[in-house]
Amino acid sequence: MNTDNTLLKGIFAPIPTPFDTAGDIDWGALKDNVDWWCTTKLSGLVALGSNGEAGYLDVQERARLIAAVVEYSAGRKPVIAGIGQESTRATIALARASAEVGAIAALVLPPHFYKATMTGPTLRDHYRAVADASPIPVILYNMPGNTGVNLGIDTPVQLSSHPNIVGMKDSSGDIVQISEIIAGATPGFAVFAGSGSYLLPTLMMGGVGATAALANVMPNECAAIVELFAAGRLEDARRVQQALLEVNRAVTSRFNVPGVKAALDLIGHYGGPPRMPMHTLDQANTAILKDILQRARAACAQVLG
Amino acid sequence: MNTDNTLLKGIFAPIPTPFDTAGDIDWGALKDNVDWWCTTKLSGLVALGSNGEAGYLDVQERARLIAAVVEYSAGRKPVIAGIGQESTRATIALARASAEVGAIAALVLPPHFYKATMTGPTLRDHYRAVADASPIPVILYNMPGNTGVNLGIDTPVQLSSHPNIVGMKDSSGDIVQISEIIAGATPGFAVFAGSGSYLLPTLMMGGVGATAALANVMPNECAAIVELFAAGRLEDARRVQQALLEVNRAVTSRFNVPGVKAALDLIGHYGGPPRMPMHTLDQANTAILKDILQRARAACAQVLG
Amino acid sequence: MNTDNTLLKGIFAPIPTPFDTAGDIDWGALKDNVDWWCTTKLSGLVALGSNGEAGYLDVQERARLIAAVVEYSAGRKPVIAGIGQESTRATIALARASAEVGAIAALVLPPHFYKATMTGPTLRDHYRAVADASPIPVILYNMPGNTGVNLGIDTPVQLSSHPNIVGMKDSSGDIVQISEIIAGATPGFAVFAGSGSYLLPTLMMGGVGATAALANVMPNECAAIVELFAAGRLEDARRVQQALLEVNRAVTSRFNVPGVKAALDLIGHYGGPPRMPMHTLDQANTAILKDILQRARAACAQVLG
Amino acid sequence: MNTDNTLLKGIFAPIPTPFDTAGDIDWGALKDNVDWWCTTKLSGLVALGSNGEAGYLDVQERARLIAAVVEYSAGRKPVIAGIGQESTRATIALARASAEVGAIAALVLPPHFYKATMTGPTLRDHYRAVADASPIPVILYNMPGNTGVNLGIDTPVQLSSHPNIVGMKDSSGDIVQISEIIAGATPGFAVFAGSGSYLLPTLMMGGVGATAALANVMPNECAAIVELFAAGRLEDARRVQQALLEVNRAVTSRFNVPGVKAALDLIGHYGGPPRMPMHTLDQANTAILKDILQRARAACAQVLG
Repeated sequence: MNTDNTLLKGIFAPIPTPFDTAGDIDWGALKDNVDWWCTTKLSGLVALGSNGEAGYLDVQERARLIAAVVEYSAGRKPVIAGIGQESTRATIALARASAEVGAIAALVLPPHFYKATMTGPTLRDHYRAVADASPIPVILYNMPGNTGVNLGIDTPVQLSSHPNIVGMKDSSGDIVQISEIIAGATPGFAVFAGSGSYLLPTLMMGGVGATAALANVMPNECAAIVELFAAGRLEDARRVQQALLEVNRAVTSRFNVPGVKAALDLIGHYGGPPRMPMHTLDQANTAILKDILQRARAACAQVLG
Repeated sequence: MNTDNTLLKGIFAPIPTPFDTAGDIDWGALKDNVDWWCTTKLSGLVALGSNGEAGYLDVQERARLIAAVVEYSAGRKPVIAGIGQESTRATIALARASAEVGAIAALVLPPHFYKATMTGPTLRDHYRAVADASPIPVILYNMPGNTGVNLGIDTPVQLSSHPNIVGMKDSSGDIVQISEIIAGATPGFAVFAGSGSYLLPTLMMGGVGATAALANVMPNECAAIVELFAAGRLEDARRVQQALLEVNRAVTSRFNVPGVKAALDLIGHYGGPPRMPMHTLDQANTAILKDILQRARAACAQVLG
Repeated sequence: MNTDNTLLKGIFAPIPTPFDTAGDIDWGALKDNVDWWCTTKLSGLVALGSNGEAGYLDVQERARLIAAVVEYSAGRKPVIAGIGQESTRATIALARASAEVGAIAALVLPPHFYKATMTGPTLRDHYRAVADASPIPVILYNMPGNTGVNLGIDTPVQLSSHPNIVGMKDSSGDIVQISEIIAGATPGFAVFAGSGSYLLPTLMMGGVGATAALANVMPNECAAIVELFAAGRLEDARRVQQALLEVNRAVTSRFNVPGVKAALDLIGHYGGPPRMPMHTLDQANTAILKDILQRARAACAQVLG
Repeated sequence: MNTDNTLLKGIFAPIPTPFDTAGDIDWGALKDNVDWWCTTKLSGLVALGSNGEAGYLDVQERARLIAAVVEYSAGRKPVIAGIGQESTRATIALARASAEVGAIAALVLPPHFYKATMTGPTLRDHYRAVADASPIPVILYNMPGNTGVNLGIDTPVQLSSHPNIVGMKDSSGDIVQISEIIAGATPGFAVFAGSGSYLLPTLMMGGVGATAALANVMPNECAAIVELFAAGRLEDARRVQQALLEVNRAVTSRFNVPGVKAALDLIGHYGGPPRMPMHTLDQANTAILKDILQRARAACAQVLG
C-alpha cells in the first residue's frame, strides 16, 4: 500500500487497551473510545503504543487489537500500529499483519532484553531488516524509560536514509538529542515528541508534533499547541504548554498507564482496570488526579476560551 | 508433584537455546549438549534462563523447549524452567505447562516493561498469584541488568514465607543485598549467586550455589568451588574463584549470549548463532575468548590437577 | 549594593582560568581575554563557573580571580561570581568577598559530596542561609553532570520567592524540568540554559538566555539566537541553534574544559593548559575540534552573513 | 619515614570530626573519642576519611585535625590521613603536611568534579604524581557513592606496582571488582572493604580488613569478624557479619554522617552536630537508630558472649 507521509504530523494518541473486570479485552469500550477520539483534533491513533499493554496481550490479541482499532476508526483517523518485539522475525510478522488490516505505519520499539548487546550496529541491522520486509513505513520508537536502551543520535540519523523508515517518536525527553536527530536526519524525516511535556520545544526545533499519553485525555489541548505555534502565537502556545505540564506528568511518570485509564474514567470515557500485574489507580491518587485534570482544563481554558 | 527442595543447591547451568543457520531450534544439538552436561558435576539445568533467548521464541517454542530439555536429561539432572512473562496470566500458564512436562521448579523473572509501576506491592502480588497457581515451586529471579528492575531486599524476604516460593537467583551482583536477603529470609530459602564471579562470596554468606552462564562452559570448575568451600579448603576455593573471574566476565557482561555460544563451539560442543537481532561473536573477539578460556583452564588446573 | 536584575538575561560566558606552563594563573592572558569578550555581544561574564577550575584554585586564588575579572572588565560587562563551596560558612565568606570586589551576583553550586544527605530541605536551608547573608543576589546553579545532585523542580520553585534569590542556571539539560521551574517560580525569576545546546528551547519556554561554555568561543553566535528569537525569526534562530550543536558538544561533554581552552587557542586567544590532574587536549582531538569549529562558523555565517 | 606495611590490615575507623554547637572543632571531644578508640581492637584510625567532613573544613583546619589525631593517639594506634583534593598540587601539599605530623599513610580520594575528564590515564598520572611526591605511602580510595567516579579494576591494578602505592579502600560495594583487583594486583597490595557490610566476603576473597564508618561505633564487633575468619570459625563470622548489616546501613546509606554522630552520642561518646549544610539526625530517626544499635549488640553478643 502507499502511505501518505504527510499524515505524519500533529498529535497522535497512543491509546490504552480497555479490559473488562475479568481481564479480557472490552471491544465495546474500545469502539466507544475510538468513536470519541475520532471527533477530536487528533491527527491519528496508535494501537499498541506504550500505553497499550502490548506485553500483556498474547500474539493473537495483538493482531486483533490493531485490526479492531482500524475497523472502528473507519477511515476517520489514520492508525499506526505498535509492533516492536524482541526478535526480528516476530517484529516482521506483526508488521505484515498490521499492514494487512490497514495500519498506515509501524511504530517499532527496539529489542531490549539483552541490553548489553543492543549496540548501534545490531539495532541498525534489526531496523533495516524490519523496514525491508514491512509493507508499511517504519517509525523508530525510542523509549529508554521502559526499555533501558537509548537509540541515541547516530542510529536514527543513519536509518533516516532508508526509504521505508520515515520518522521517529523520541520519548527520551532529551531535547538536545531530538535537536541533533532533526538536524542530522534526511529532510522530511518526521520527529515526534514522545511525551506531551516537551511538545512545544520539539516544534521549535523542527519536530512535527507529539505521540503522547496525554493526547488520550486532552487531545484538543495538545493539538492547540501545534496550531498556536504554527500561527506564530508563541506566548499563547507557551501558556498552554505550561498548563499541561502537571497533568502530563500525572499520566506518565507519576501514575503511568493506571493514570491514563483513571483519567479516561474521570472524564466520562472508558479506562477500566489494567491487566495484572499492573494495579488500578487507588482512590487517593484518583482524587489527586481529578484535581490535576481540573486545574489543567481551567488553565487551558484561560488561553483557548 | 512433589519437589525435593534439597535439590536446590550447587551449580545450575542456564543453558542456551541452539539454533541452526536458518534460525530454527536445533533439537539434535540441544540433545547432544544436554547429554554432555549430564555427565558433569552440575546439580541441574535451567531451560529458558537468561541465556535461553526466551524472548526470541514464540509461545509454542518455549513450551516445547522446556519439555525437550526434561526429556533429553532423562532423569539424570533436574530441570528448572524459566517462565517469567510480562503478564501474570501468561506466567501462570507457562508455569503449568512446565510442571506438566516435568520441570522441578519455575524460575520467575519479574515483569519489567512498565518499570515505574513495578513497585514492591505490585511485584509481591504478582509473585504470590503465580506461586498460588503454580504446581511447582517458584524461584525468584532478580536480574536488574536485563530488566531494569531490582527486587531489592524486602520483597524477597517477605515472599520467602510463601510455602511455594523456595528460593532466589540474584544476578544483581550486590553481595550486601544477597547477604541481607539470606539473613532476613525464612530458613531454608535457597539463594543462588546469579553469576559465577561471586559464587564464593555468596557461599561464605550462606548461599547455596550459583546459576551461572559460566556453568555451561566450565561446569566442573564451578562445582569445584562449592566442594572446596564445603571441605574448608578456603585458599584453594579462592584460587579457583579468582581463576574464573576473567572468563566469567567474557561470557556475561563482555560478550553475553554470543560469548556463551562461541565458547561452546570452542570447546567442542554446539553453540551456533543466536537469533536476530543478536549477532554471532565476530572472529576477533572469538580469538580473544579462546585465549581467555585457555588461561582459565590452566589456572584452574594448577589447583584442581 | 543594588543589583539591577534586568542585567540577568542574554548570554553569559563562564570563563576559563588561564594558567601558564608552570601552573600559575596567567593574569596577562586573563586580561587579554576579558578585553576581547568585552567587545562582543555577551551580556556578561561568570568568573569561576564550571569552566573556571575553581576546585583547582586555593581560597586566596579564588578571591583574587574574581576581583581581577571585575577589574579587567572595567564596567564594560557585569561579572557574576561562582562561589559554591561544600560548607555553608565557606560559601557565605566567598559571597561577601565577591560582593566587596564588585561582582553583581553570586552563582551558587550546591554542596554535593555527601550526596545522600543533600535532600530538598537541607539544600533549601543552605541556599536560604547563603541568600540571607550574601550582599549580592544569589543565582541557583544546577549542574548534576558534575555534582551528582539534581536540584529538581520543587527546590528552585520554593527558593524563587526569597527576595535575594533571583534566578537559576540549569545545566541538567532537562527541558521539562526547566519548563516546570519557569512555570512554577515567582514571576521575574531568571532561568538560564546551562549549556548552549538548548538555548532556543529554553527561550521558547520563557527562559532568559544561557550561561554556556560555548559562549567563551562563539559569543556573538550565541547572542544571535536570542536576538533572532526576540525578532520572531524562528526559522533563522533554529538554523543557528542547529549549527551550534556539534561545537557545543565538543566544548562540553566531549572535550570539556580542555576543549574550551584548546578552542580559545585555535581562534587566537589564550586557552593554555589546565591545572593537573586535567590534561591538555591532545593533538588528534585538537585537529578534530578545529574542523568542528570551522563547520560551525561556516554554518552560522550562512544565516548571519 | 619508614612505614611498616604490615600495619595495613584489620579494622580502621574513619573517624568523624566533632564540632561544638557554634560549628567549631571540639578538640576536647576529639581527644576523648580518640582515647576511647585507642582502648578497642581497632588496628588504627583514619583522620579525614569520608566521615570526617573534610570538605567542610578549611585548609588550615584539615592540617591541624590530622596533627591532633596523631598527637591524641600518642602512638597507641597508627593514623592514616585522608588527603584527596581536587588538584594534584593541593593533594601533594596535604600529603607532605600529614607526613610531617606523623601520619603513617595517605588515603587519597580521586579528583572528581570534572567527572568526564577523570579517565584512567588522567587518574593514573594524578596518583603517580602524588605517590612520587608523598613522603608516606599512598592508599587509593574508591568511593563512587560520594564522588561519582569509579576507579574500576585496571587503574588500581596498574598503580599497585608503584613502590609507594600500598593499598586501597574500595567503597564501591562491588565484590567482583574487589576480587578482580586482589587477583590482579601486585602481591602484598592491601585491599580494604570500604564498608562494614561486605567485610567478610572481602576477607574471603583475600582482602585485609575494612575501613568502615561502622568501626567508629562497634569497633570490637568488626574486629571480631576478622579474628573469627582467621580462626576458621566461618559460621560464627557469618553470624556476626549478618548481625551488623542493618546497623551498618544505618550509619552509611540510610543516615550517613549524621547517623555516625548520633550513634556515638547514643553509646556515650561525643557525636555532636555536623557542620552546615548537613543536618543533625532528627529525634524520630535517632529513636530508630537506637533500636537498631540495640538489636545489633544483642545479636553480636549471642555469638561473642
